[in-house]
Amino acid sequence: MTTDPLALGRRVMALIEDLARYTDEPGRLTRLYLSPAHRRAAGATQAILEAAGLKASIDPLGTVVGRTEGRDPGAPAILIGSHIDSVVDAGRFDGNLGVVLGIVAAEALIAEGGPACPIEVVAFGDEENVRFPTNLSTSYALAGHYDPAWLEGRDSDGTTLREALMAFGGNPEAIGTIARKPGAYRVYLEAHIEQGPQLEAADLPVGVVSAINGITRARARITGEAGHAGTVPMAMRRDALAAAADMIAVVERIGATRTDTVATVGAATVQPGAINVIAAQVDFTLDARASDDAVRHAMVEDIVAECEAIAARRGVGFTIEPFMDSPATPMDAGLIATLEGAVEACGIPPLRLASGAGHDAVAMARLCPAAMLFVRCRGGISHNPAESITAEDAGIAARVMIEAVRRLQS
Amino acid sequence: MTTDPLALGRRVMALIEDLARYTDEPGRLTRLYLSPAHRRAAGATQAILEAAGLKASIDPLGTVVGRTEGRDPGAPAILIGSHIDSVVDAGRFDGNLGVVLGIVAAEALIAEGGPACPIEVVAFGDEENVRFPTNLSTSYALAGHYDPAWLEGRDSDGTTLREALMAFGGNPEAIGTIARKPGAYRVYLEAHIEQGPQLEAADLPVGVVSAINGITRARARITGEAGHAGTVPMAMRRDALAAAADMIAVVERIGATRTDTVATVGAATVQPGAINVIAAQVDFTLDARASDDAVRHAMVEDIVAECEAIAARRGVGFTIEPFMDSPATPMDAGLIATLEGAVEACGIPPLRLASGAGHDAVAMARLCPAAMLFVRCRGGISHNPAESITAEDAGIAARVMIEAVRRLQS
Repeated sequence: MTTDPLALGRRVMALIEDLARYTDEPGRLTRLYLSPAHRRAAGATQAILEAAGLKASIDPLGTVVGRTEGRDPGAPAILIGSHIDSVVDAGRFDGNLGVVLGIVAAEALIAEGGPACPIEVVAFGDEENVRFPTNLSTSYALAGHYDPAWLEGRDSDGTTLREALMAFGGNPEAIGTIARKPGAYRVYLEAHIEQGPQLEAADLPVGVVSAINGITRARARITGEAGHAGTVPMAMRRDALAAAADMIAVVERIGATRTDTVATVGAATVQPGAINVIAAQVDFTLDARASDDAVRHAMVEDIVAECEAIAARRGVGFTIEPFMDSPATPMDAGLIATLEGAVEACGIPPLRLASGAGHDAVAMARLCPAAMLFVRCRGGISHNPAESITAEDAGIAARVMIEAVRRLQS
Repeated sequence: MTTDPLALGRRVMALIEDLARYTDEPGRLTRLYLSPAHRRAAGATQAILEAAGLKASIDPLGTVVGRTEGRDPGAPAILIGSHIDSVVDAGRFDGNLGVVLGIVAAEALIAEGGPACPIEVVAFGDEENVRFPTNLSTSYALAGHYDPAWLEGRDSDGTTLREALMAFGGNPEAIGTIARKPGAYRVYLEAHIEQGPQLEAADLPVGVVSAINGITRARARITGEAGHAGTVPMAMRRDALAAAADMIAVVERIGATRTDTVATVGAATVQPGAINVIAAQVDFTLDARASDDAVRHAMVEDIVAECEAIAARRGVGFTIEPFMDSPATPMDAGLIATLEGAVEACGIPPLRLASGAGHDAVAMARLCPAAMLFVRCRGGISHNPAESITAEDAGIAARVMIEAVRRLQS
C-alpha cells in the first residue's frame, strides 16, 4: 500500500466513484436510509472492506462494520467512519468520503503489518435523517442511545422505519446488541467534506474541527394589518413585511457580531402576498448556531428582544416558537491535538474550525473521544450534485488520516 | 323628496341593501363584469332609475344609463356615476354607493321640479377589472377610448369578453355608439368610499379628491447564492433574503419621505425557502403611487438606485422590471371648488385628499371636467365584506351631491 498522496488520492476517488453508482433515482444520486440503493451500497462497502483485509458485516440497523484486530486484539479499538446514506439529488462525497478514508487508512495500516490495536471502520446509514423522523439513529445505536420510538416513525409513503428495516434485511429485535461497551474504543475519527467555504478561503486542503455547533431553530409570525397599497398612508400602516424586513436585518446583524456564530432566515412567506395589498402576515424561520451554547442562547435572546422591540414600535403582533435547541458537541482536545499533529506532519498548517452542520460524531462523542477532519470542497457546496473535491486534497486527507491512526494505535 | 340627512341616509342605505342582493356566490358578494349577478344588478339599477323618474336603459357594454332631460334638454348634461361590478368577496359600498348617490341626487332635483340641464346617472360594469384583462373599459367606452383588443381578452375559464358580452345580452358591434360627444357634458361627478383611513382620522364624513394618483408597478428579482445555513460564515454569504430585507426597508423609507406618496412591497417569495438554506433568490413586487407624476418617477428612481447600491454592496444580482406606469389624473379645479362649496354649505370643513386607488373618473376625465367626493368608511377597509359606512355619513354625502348638482345645473 502506497502512501504517495497522488496514488492515495486516485484510490480514494476510485472508491467514491464505485459507491456513487448506487442510487434509487436514475440520473442522480439519492440514497435514503434503508432504500434498495442503500442496501446495495452497504453490500458494496462490505465487499470493499473485505477486499481491504477487514472482517466485515452489516449490523441489525444496516450499518456496515469492518474490523481488523491488530496485534493486540484486547486493546481498545480505533473507530473510523461516516455515513453512506444521502439527501435527495446528493453529491458523492458527503459521508462516503469519510467511509472511504477510513477504509484507505485501515488498509494502509494493514499493509504496514497490521495496526497495534483493533481498527473498526463503520458506514452509518441514517445521518441525513431525510426519510424518517430520526436523529443520527444508526450512530446513536453504536453509542448506546437508540430511541425505540424511532422504529415507529413513518416515511412520506407511510412506511415505518421498522417495516423498512425488515425489508432491508435488518433486525429491530437485535438493536440492543449494537451498543458498544464504553472503554472498548479509544477514539472515534471522522473525515468529512467541509460543506462550507472556509478552507477554500484559507487555501488549505484540510482543517480540524473544534466543535460541532449547537443549533436553535424557531418559527416566527408577524401579524400586521392588510390594507390597500394605494390608499393607506405610510404613517398609518401596520405592514407585516416591512416589520419582517427589520427583523431579518436584526438576525443577520446579530449573527455576524461574532465570527463563531451564524444566524439565518432561510424561509419567509407573505400573506396575502398581492402587489396592491399591504402584507397582513409574515411567517419566517430562524436557524442560529454557535459552538458555545451560552453564546448561542444569548444570541437568540438578543434576536428575540430586538424583534419584540420592532414589533412594539410598529404596532404589529410577534410570536416566536423555538422547536429545536440542540447543544454543541465540543471535539476531544487530545484527539484534536493528535489530528493537528498529523496535519502538520503532512506539511499543512493546522486550521481549526467549527462545524456548522451536524455529523455522526455528535452521537459517537457520547461513546468515546471524538474528532473530525474537514476536507476542502469546491465553493463550499454540498447537498448538491456539484459537490466536488480534488484528488490532490483527497490524497492529503488520506495521508493525514493514516498518520493520525499511526499515532493513535500506539 | 326630502333633504333631511337622516332620511336621505336611510334612503341611500336601503338602495345599497337592495343592490347587495345580487351576487354570483351565495353567502358573499361577488359580482364580476358580465356575470349573471351583474346582469340582474343592472336590471335592478335600471328599475330603480325608472322609479326615480329617469329614462333608463342598458348600453351595449352593460352600463346602465338613466337620464332626465331637465328644463333645457339642449344644455350640456351633468354626468353622475360609479360602478356596480365588484371584486370577489366584496363589500357592498365600493362603486354601488356612487351609483346610489347619483340616483338620490337626480331624484331630489326631479322632486324640486326638475334640473335646469339634463342629468345622466351611469352605473359602469367594469371598474374592478377582476374578470378580464381590461382597464376601466366601460367608462373608457363613454369617454370614446374603448380598446377593441379588450373584447378578445379571456377570463380564467377561457371565455372571451366578447362571448361574455353576447351572453349578457350586450352588443360588441355597437360599442362605437356609446362614445359621448365632447361638449355634451359639463362635468362628471363620482362619489365613492374613501377606501383609506384619512377621513376617519380627520373625523370628517366626506372629503374632496384632489387627484387620482399615478401608479408605477414593477417586479424585482434578487439573485444570491444558496448555501448551508450552518457552514457558510456570515461574512462570506450572498444572502438574497437579507438583501431583500434591506430593499424592502428602502421602499418603505422612500415611500414615507413625503405625505403625498406611498410605496409598497406587497409580495415576496423566497427560493429555495428552507430553514437551513441561505436564500438563493427573492422575487418581490413594487407598487408606488403619487398624485404628481414627476414626484412618482423620482421616487421610483431613488428606490431603484438604492436597491442597486445594496445589490452591489452585497454582491447579489438585482433586476427590476416596471410593467405599469399609469399617470396621475388631477381632478378639475373648478369642479373641486364647486364640490368644496357644497361640502361647506353642509357645514363640513372641506378636506382635500388624493385618491390612492383608481376610479372610473380617470376615464371620464378624458371626456369632461371630473371630480370625486370621498365618503368615510370604517377603518379604511374596502374590498372586504367588513366594508362599512354610517347612515349619517351617507345622508351627508347625499346632501353634498344634491347641493353640488344644484350649483352645477345653473
